[in-house]
Amino acid sequence: MKLKVYADRLSQPVRAVIIFCEVNGIDYEEIKVDLANREHLTPEFAEINPMQQLPAIVHGSFKLFESHAILIYLASSFPGVADHWYPADVYKRRKIHSVLDWHHSNLRRGPTLSKTESFWLDDNRPFLLGQNQPSIADLILVCDIMQVKLVGETDWNRLLGPYKKVQQWIENTRNATNPHFDELHKVLKELKEKLQN
Amino acid sequence: MKLKVYADRLSQPVRAVIIFCEVNGIDYEEIKVDLANREHLTPEFAEINPMQQLPAIVHGSFKLFESHAILIYLASSFPGVADHWYPADVYKRRKIHSVLDWHHSNLRRGPTLSKTESFWLDDNRPFLLGQNQPSIADLILVCDIMQVKLVGETDWNRLLGPYKKVQQWIENTRNATNPHFDELHKVLKELKEKLQN
Repeated sequence: MKLKVYADRLSQPVRAVIIFCEVNGIDYEEIKVDLANREHLTPEFAEINPMQQLPAIVHGSFKLFESHAILIYLASSFPGVADHWYPADVYKRRKIHSVLDWHHSNLRRGPTLSKTESFWLDDNRPFLLGQNQPSIADLILVCDIMQVKLVGETDWNRLLGPYKKVQQWIENTRNATNPHFDELHKVLKELKEKLQN
Repeated sequence: MKLKVYADRLSQPVRAVIIFCEVNGIDYEEIKVDLANREHLTPEFAEINPMQQLPAIVHGSFKLFESHAILIYLASSFPGVADHWYPADVYKRRKIHSVLDWHHSNLRRGPTLSKTESFWLDDNRPFLLGQNQPSIADLILVCDIMQVKLVGETDWNRLLGPYKKVQQWIENTRNATNPHFDELHKVLKELKEKLQN
């Protein structure tokens, strides 16, 4: 009953799910669904995810989509996932839902960065919610922000420049999940080079 | 340590949270934050919720916002909340996260109704995900759809007309949570009458 991850690494939530599997030693099979070739819109993929979005997983007879739900499921169901990813403690766990839901409702990058700097990272700990180790919320938000790299270093520096804590937090998340973090974000560099040629 | 709910009943997620408290016998104090008077933008309310959105709760020293996170917290932390609202079973629970996250990302009403009819209510059970009793996902989605009533019966019938299962499911959710459901939706009727005069 090997986990199947339907993926295109150009999608930021797909990268979050794969980094999570790699970091936590979850054995998975990556099945490429090429978004550029519209493979997510085929009837075959609709059998996997009727909403025709990535990522999606199949685990035995159990199908699931939406990256937050997938990460919560993986963190809860696979042995050996450290507690900090999705803490059992009811207070910490509700705070993680709060970050994730807030991020879902607030996808404009400027306000997201500003509130992350001033509120979510407020107590000078390395990760969101005062944690010393990353949770699924760090992974989801950082992978989303990394998508900005695609538009180029100038925009990245202009956008991230004012937010010193956010910059440090991205580095912390990267360090905590490397070499998988860099490996998964290679596609951004490759795509950028392709777009420039 | 009475639960405080910061609320304006004109907000659909506020209504979902209050209906949940009422149905489950959770003792709470409702603190009005008048959206029309921009009370959510005051520095006082920023102390409660730095994102300045409703609903928000305070429970002892614990503050929380985002309706999904609040409902998950209430369902997990208060005694006497029946399991069907947020099932302990890992498979059922992940499916609920999947519905909630999907709804967060897909707020246009047309596709939402269509996918709810054809997929989430697919197996002819009274509630989402094949449940015989409602979960927090039923409450959140139905309260959101009810906001359409505000624009009038004609639009309601035009929009809901093709979706027989959705109509029945709204009735099922209403019946399972009445008299609180009707009580909380009175504001829509009152506002509509005010707008027409």
